Amino acid sequence: MNFNYYLPVNLKFGSGRITELGTTAAVYGKKALLVTGKHSTKKSGLLDRACVLLQEAGVETIVFDQVEANPLTTTAEAGAEIAKREQCEMVIGLGGGSIMDAAKSIAFLAKNDGDISDYIFQKKFSDEALPIIEVPTTCGTGSEGNCFSVLTNPENGDKKSLRCNAIVPKASIIDPDLMKTMPKGVLASVGFDALCHCMEAYVSRAAQPLTDMMALEGMHRIAEHLPKLYKGEGTKEDWEAVTWGSTLGGMVINTAGVTAPHAFEHPASGLRNLVHGRGLAAVVPAITEASISGAPEKYAVISRILGGKDENDCADSIRAFLKKLDLLVTLSEQGVKEEDIDWMSENSWKVSKGSLELHPVVFDVETIKKIYRKSM
Amino acid sequence: MNFNYYLPVNLKFGSGRITELGTTAAVYGKKALLVTGKHSTKKSGLLDRACVLLQEAGVETIVFDQVEANPLTTTAEAGAEIAKREQCEMVIGLGGGSIMDAAKSIAFLAKNDGDISDYIFQKKFSDEALPIIEVPTTCGTGSEGNCFSVLTNPENGDKKSLRCNAIVPKASIIDPDLMKTMPKGVLASVGFDALCHCMEAYVSRAAQPLTDMMALEGMHRIAEHLPKLYKGEGTKEDWEAVTWGSTLGGMVINTAGVTAPHAFEHPASGLRNLVHGRGLAAVVPAITEASISGAPEKYAVISRILGGKDENDCADSIRAFLKKLDLLVTLSEQGVKEEDIDWMSENSWKVSKGSLELHPVVFDVETIKKIYRKSM
Repeated sequence: MNFNYYLPVNLKFGSGRITELGTTAAVYGKKALLVTGKHSTKKSGLLDRACVLLQEAGVETIVFDQVEANPLTTTAEAGAEIAKREQCEMVIGLGGGSIMDAAKSIAFLAKNDGDISDYIFQKKFSDEALPIIEVPTTCGTGSEGNCFSVLTNPENGDKKSLRCNAIVPKASIIDPDLMKTMPKGVLASVGFDALCHCMEAYVSRAAQPLTDMMALEGMHRIAEHLPKLYKGEGTKEDWEAVTWGSTLGGMVINTAGVTAPHAFEHPASGLRNLVHGRGLAAVVPAITEASISGAPEKYAVISRILGGKDENDCADSIRAFLKKLDLLVTLSEQGVKEEDIDWMSENSWKVSKGSLELHPVVFDVETIKKIYRKSM
Repeated sequence: MNFNYYLPVNLKFGSGRITELGTTAAVYGKKALLVTGKHSTKKSGLLDRACVLLQEAGVETIVFDQVEANPLTTTAEAGAEIAKREQCEMVIGLGGGSIMDAAKSIAFLAKNDGDISDYIFQKKFSDEALPIIEVPTTCGTGSEGNCFSVLTNPENGDKKSLRCNAIVPKASIIDPDLMKTMPKGVLASVGFDALCHCMEAYVSRAAQPLTDMMALEGMHRIAEHLPKLYKGEGTKEDWEAVTWGSTLGGMVINTAGVTAPHAFEHPASGLRNLVHGRGLAAVVPAITEASISGAPEKYAVISRILGGKDENDCADSIRAFLKKLDLLVTLSEQGVKEEDIDWMSENSWKVSKGSLELHPVVFDVETIKKIYRKSM
């Protein structure tokens, strides 16, 4: 037993706790950049509600609503310009994973000069950022519970995360009620992303006692409750369970890292703008088949949580789970071409060396190509 | 599900990691007050080793070695005077629970004026303290994983904890090798304290998903491995397991609190200077018998972890566990008198109202007296 554990986020979990946004933010200053997406928080009325809550607590709000799915480095730069110009004292992310990740990088760039790609590829370091508050509206990335901010560089398609303790949110308000406006397809895809975080951290070579217990808890909650939500039979308890599973997924990857599935998905969605959870769904079964030998006892546990028997039917258990979510998908049906495979395989090592090295079986580029081909 | 979770300590766990003390401390400045006890770290050579490690990392060390068991408010004041006079930039606690708790209050008083009892009894508030680094040498209090600093006021015997986020250690180096010099009796008593933290947080009304999973893990580790260590059959794995269980115990009470056992023990040891773990051993069985009805399913889980069947034999399972540690003790054999019972019962509500209210059954003063009597 030899491990580190450090995760200084203040989690505020519970139905209706969005009402605490104003008082939570007021601790960090009087002016916030509120980062959100182009549509959903406007349509649902959540953005207006958040602005009122902030105003009531004496926090002036500048809204930045230009974040896209798979957020770009250039978008983070644009947001940071506004945060600096307006002298915002904190950044609030209100939305799904793309929004929360963008909010983190905006907070980082508001305090650090230069090209964010240099920080992402660890050519430069800083541990300063504006205080960050995250309010998830999807139960997927778990960005509210970690120090990752995944961005895509539009110049070269590199999709990779900025990681530093300064972008661990100061506080995250995790209100399961906010998840209920997600369309069904989004729920399936973000929920599977959350399950992947737990599974990947669990098999990771950097797994340790705290991440193991949290990953197991997260897998149990998502495996049991996500299919019910997807079928439209969701109770309050189901929403709470999947939302909590998602936060746990974000927390465990902060310490144990992601492994091969995310390392395979990032090149695909960096290049072809896939929906992240659907990209994962396409690659995970074939990756799992090629990985069992590296951690058979852990894949047996995963398999049993998903209704299987042992490590040998783990990939099939995952397929059965995906079927319940209508996520038995391929890369090719999501726009990935045969001729992308070589670039993706090389890019996977370029942007996700660390994650590939944490996987129970370390794949060389040729093996990666084979697994991509199986996933087409 | 409605809960908060915030615990910003950087845990560095592993055999041999004491070697990281210097580099860990150097982050916080160039001069440290090192708080330790009067004997054991000197006898074991650990104090000298720590000073060398700090010196090599460019950290000057002032040693304060006047901390007693059940540390006094006056001792914390004396330590803080030195920290201020010497302009120390951090406080390092090197020792058992008394030492680590004293280090926290010293770090707090070095930044805050006035009587510490006012902060303990929440008449005054502050969230400032010098950075704290804890290095446990006993696996008991788990002080390395929480924001508590228990002090005894020599003027009136009040034993109560200072609690604020500023005294969460910045970093804790938890090296199981450092536990190996503990005498057998100390091991039993501190190990049982750690088990109590896990059991109390588990049954607490403030228990929540993260504390439940950690408390269960802690109980399992301690129940399985502490008796082996006590018998002298300890392997590396046993030391790691109990040490980790102890840190988990400290972490869970940070969020879920302690309950009746600690509320009963503090008046006894505040008055008669008991060894904390032995004081707990005397009161826990009778408290458990009077508590089952408040959380039968949780007491059933505890009982099974200790080798019992269900909630009905939980107190007996605890007694059987205590027997393995030669801890089947009474209050009277530890110097508590019949005539102390009235004062202790009133004092329990005075100093530990919060803990008594978190217990599954809230005892009135008359019931507390009866339980004390049973524990004599």
